[in-house]
Amino acid sequence: MQLGMVGLGKMGANMTQRLIEDGHEVVVTDLIPLAIEEAVKDGATGAEDLATLVKKLDAPRAVWVMVPAGVPTQSTIDELANLLEAGDIIINGGNSYYKDAIIQAEQLGKKGLHLVDVGTSGGVWGLKEGYSMMIGGEKEIVDHLSPIFETLAPAADKGWGYVGSSGAGHFVKMIHNGIEYGMMQAYAEGFSIMKQKPEYDIDLAEVSRIWQDGSVVRSWLLDLMKEAFDVDQDFEDIVGYVNDSGEGRWTVFEAIDLNVSAPVITESLLRRIRSREEGYTDKLLSVMRNQFGGHKMMKEEDE
Amino acid sequence: MQLGMVGLGKMGANMTQRLIEDGHEVVVTDLIPLAIEEAVKDGATGAEDLATLVKKLDAPRAVWVMVPAGVPTQSTIDELANLLEAGDIIINGGNSYYKDAIIQAEQLGKKGLHLVDVGTSGGVWGLKEGYSMMIGGEKEIVDHLSPIFETLAPAADKGWGYVGSSGAGHFVKMIHNGIEYGMMQAYAEGFSIMKQKPEYDIDLAEVSRIWQDGSVVRSWLLDLMKEAFDVDQDFEDIVGYVNDSGEGRWTVFEAIDLNVSAPVITESLLRRIRSREEGYTDKLLSVMRNQFGGHKMMKEEDE
Amino acid sequence: MQLGMVGLGKMGANMTQRLIEDGHEVVVTDLIPLAIEEAVKDGATGAEDLATLVKKLDAPRAVWVMVPAGVPTQSTIDELANLLEAGDIIINGGNSYYKDAIIQAEQLGKKGLHLVDVGTSGGVWGLKEGYSMMIGGEKEIVDHLSPIFETLAPAADKGWGYVGSSGAGHFVKMIHNGIEYGMMQAYAEGFSIMKQKPEYDIDLAEVSRIWQDGSVVRSWLLDLMKEAFDVDQDFEDIVGYVNDSGEGRWTVFEAIDLNVSAPVITESLLRRIRSREEGYTDKLLSVMRNQFGGHKMMKEEDE
Amino acid sequence: MQLGMVGLGKMGANMTQRLIEDGHEVVVTDLIPLAIEEAVKDGATGAEDLATLVKKLDAPRAVWVMVPAGVPTQSTIDELANLLEAGDIIINGGNSYYKDAIIQAEQLGKKGLHLVDVGTSGGVWGLKEGYSMMIGGEKEIVDHLSPIFETLAPAADKGWGYVGSSGAGHFVKMIHNGIEYGMMQAYAEGFSIMKQKPEYDIDLAEVSRIWQDGSVVRSWLLDLMKEAFDVDQDFEDIVGYVNDSGEGRWTVFEAIDLNVSAPVITESLLRRIRSREEGYTDKLLSVMRNQFGGHKMMKEEDE
Repeated sequence: MQLGMVGLGKMGANMTQRLIEDGHEVVVTDLIPLAIEEAVKDGATGAEDLATLVKKLDAPRAVWVMVPAGVPTQSTIDELANLLEAGDIIINGGNSYYKDAIIQAEQLGKKGLHLVDVGTSGGVWGLKEGYSMMIGGEKEIVDHLSPIFETLAPAADKGWGYVGSSGAGHFVKMIHNGIEYGMMQAYAEGFSIMKQKPEYDIDLAEVSRIWQDGSVVRSWLLDLMKEAFDVDQDFEDIVGYVNDSGEGRWTVFEAIDLNVSAPVITESLLRRIRSREEGYTDKLLSVMRNQFGGHKMMKEEDE
Repeated sequence: MQLGMVGLGKMGANMTQRLIEDGHEVVVTDLIPLAIEEAVKDGATGAEDLATLVKKLDAPRAVWVMVPAGVPTQSTIDELANLLEAGDIIINGGNSYYKDAIIQAEQLGKKGLHLVDVGTSGGVWGLKEGYSMMIGGEKEIVDHLSPIFETLAPAADKGWGYVGSSGAGHFVKMIHNGIEYGMMQAYAEGFSIMKQKPEYDIDLAEVSRIWQDGSVVRSWLLDLMKEAFDVDQDFEDIVGYVNDSGEGRWTVFEAIDLNVSAPVITESLLRRIRSREEGYTDKLLSVMRNQFGGHKMMKEEDE
Repeated sequence: MQLGMVGLGKMGANMTQRLIEDGHEVVVTDLIPLAIEEAVKDGATGAEDLATLVKKLDAPRAVWVMVPAGVPTQSTIDELANLLEAGDIIINGGNSYYKDAIIQAEQLGKKGLHLVDVGTSGGVWGLKEGYSMMIGGEKEIVDHLSPIFETLAPAADKGWGYVGSSGAGHFVKMIHNGIEYGMMQAYAEGFSIMKQKPEYDIDLAEVSRIWQDGSVVRSWLLDLMKEAFDVDQDFEDIVGYVNDSGEGRWTVFEAIDLNVSAPVITESLLRRIRSREEGYTDKLLSVMRNQFGGHKMMKEEDE
Repeated sequence: MQLGMVGLGKMGANMTQRLIEDGHEVVVTDLIPLAIEEAVKDGATGAEDLATLVKKLDAPRAVWVMVPAGVPTQSTIDELANLLEAGDIIINGGNSYYKDAIIQAEQLGKKGLHLVDVGTSGGVWGLKEGYSMMIGGEKEIVDHLSPIFETLAPAADKGWGYVGSSGAGHFVKMIHNGIEYGMMQAYAEGFSIMKQKPEYDIDLAEVSRIWQDGSVVRSWLLDLMKEAFDVDQDFEDIVGYVNDSGEGRWTVFEAIDLNVSAPVITESLLRRIRSREEGYTDKLLSVMRNQFGGHKMMKEEDE
């Protein structure tokens, strides 16, 4: 079927390529002309801006917005809302906050427009391995778009599914990332303990290999760690500075709002925050120990 | 090759069957005569006790001890130590504490006996899917036993591997279980948050299905959850009382001893402990709130 | 000096009494006429509603709003904003979210009104022992009100202080409560461990007594626990169901927003949430253990 | 009464001085002759070694061992066990593991000797403010020593108390320190959050002052923080490297052994461990994010 694609970054370009290869017609735009040119070479129809893109699509139109979450996504949706007409569909495909999708759907609905929110996992591997897509919105609109989802994330491969009304797609993707934080931290801790056990000089690549088949902890993340450990196990040049992208903290806030205690997902987030801190809290502990017990504080010149 | 198997519980019986099917000769014993009979039906040679089992094996003997960890394993090894002769091998296959294996290896070594410690993951699924085996001890002894390991956990399937000197097999299995605790808790928290979101009435089986392929959190544990959710998602008759089997707390102790902070594995253990508590700590919080703020305490009769 | 007091609950009534005893003139109102009558008996001037209260005060007026946080406080402030005139002062004395005070101050400022936000600790003990007051707003307005604060929380007793611009009073009170959560949980855990040590049959009242003087953990909270333990140490009729009042979760959100990792305050909140949960997360853990390891799940009928 | 004091470090010397000032007769020894000379100047009787010290005491002797925990304490007790005679008393006053005291008491008991274990809080402030002493052992032996305890930690000041059989003194002191970890971390987190709130430029000394009287979080630790904040609030030259002395981790182990979930005391310990780590766990998280999402890893040269 026909689809407009706004945003040709890593994800948008990969998805466009996959769609074209499967016979869909994709009209694309991006702020960077070169990105449009590349997609056109692959078989896409180029459009220099949103207005042109909308004109090149037949009603009822479907436009996939795949630009960074937050202001870029919101302003793209706002502009599309003015260009599209009743019955058209906007697909919010970024890692947006699910509450934004609820508001967007409500506002677009007043104009007769439909919003579908898609949470996508699979990252840079999606082009090759297929994506995992959690989809929210009106059920019949999602059904209408199913040829697109079937191409990007074939259901036979358990790739896509409808999870609920507006926002549900981003909500489930948010939880997905919260779980991901917890799993990553669990693996990282376990391998760290092994690394710190000098008696055994454990080969972490070998342990990962053994665990890859038959063990309870086998997973795709473990497969990736195995590949990394095959190359290096010391990571001396890597700085232990870990970013978080939003979904983790949204999950923590959501859990507290819903009165669900989620210590592991929460600690995973706090640990990432800690990796970026300068340690004022620790300084205060040193100061207190010195105050009440006369314990020596380590000072800069001691290091 | 020839192997003695002591203990025909779920694991020992499955392993015996797998070995026989692959052409090995297995002499078995167990405290329950019926268990021996069953194995004999499958092609094993039965032995009524440890002394008989030892007599039926050719030197250098290899005896796999697959009885419950702790006292049963220790007393079996002690008895075997008196029956075996220099050059023979004992395989400690239970979920024992790795420090026990270090001591056992040292003591058996004085008599010329060898100890190999094997940590096995795969549980009840191992017969069908093959085990994941982490193996510690003297490298050449482990090499000698490789036909056995190849049958139980084919290396082509990434099934077994040598991880270090005595105790290393159980050490790595201990860490495996620590990671398992963290992963389980991460999934449980994530699904709990979704379950508590009434706006969406999310189908947890459908979410699991979508995540099974392409998502970052795909894993064998997730596959199992999918199967459970297909049957039920409320679990009204299940009590939220979660046991821990030892390896989790050993991992937590080890991390602290090695000065590795492992908050996620630790919180996973504490959460299990909490599931079994009667809540004295919480009562104290209620009492304190009442003392300083006049906040009403909920009493038994209020419930 | 002269002050209007809106809200004669536990806190408002106590403060009114303290102010009158120290020679201030207090005009009071409350939704419950009886509460007004009681205050009048103590020497206050009664007013049947906000409009009357405002009329009975001389410009520039100062009105202390001491009604429940949230909607009641907001609607009272909104109504007062219409009744007061430029130069008048509203004191927001409830446990409100500090961001509300920032918005309120901005909106009132457009009409020439001033907002002072006061976070008060001391609870039911304040009448007798004096309050601890953290005050935010315009410095000169706070200075103007200092006779009031001096009565309620004498500076000689380290009772009150100016902590910053609008919202700072409630912000510091919020953090105070976050710390309080952590301290309470630390004590509760420590006493719980002692309670669970059957070998020693430790008298928790005696331990509290010993710690009250000279120990590093001495505090007012400990004094309160001592008093509670003198009466009972089993609390068999108390349900371990612990509420949280808002400030704790706001502190957790704030820490994450500011990228400060605060595991202890966070865990204290999660533990309270856990005390009120039905245990779906734990059920999922039981189900998973059963799925991969064949571990028996405890069912309702087993209990 | 008469007492032998072994070990004239900070604590031992202070206690000796306090005892002499209150009229007790103290025979002292130490590995450093100068320390003995100092005590003799204060009025103590010097002894060049343990044998001499024992000779200078009248039966039934009471000898306070105030040397570092672990090997020094154990070897001193072993040597004293050979020098003393039935009916004599050894006081283990260090921060020893409570299980050691149980074993020591049992072994000394076979020779008719008595062990009393004393956990002491109050640190460097004890000489001036009096100690807080938790005492374990045989009740009648503790009663016999009460004049000593009355001097060091007057009961009128809630200073000392009997808490149970052998080991109970050190057990309660261990829990005391666990709680102390939690309280310190709670304060440190709260002040850190305030420090990171640039909008308010909060004066932490002023906040501490306000909280010192009337607030729920008032405590001796807060008094100490106030004094530290009066001098500095940035601590730029202090390294956030926080030691732990043993009791904290013993408390965590004990809680797990007793199946009491104590997340706050546990997290306080983990946070201290984290302050001393080099961040291998965080490096692994960075590597994983790079593997699955193509997220850029920060490298040494980027800093």
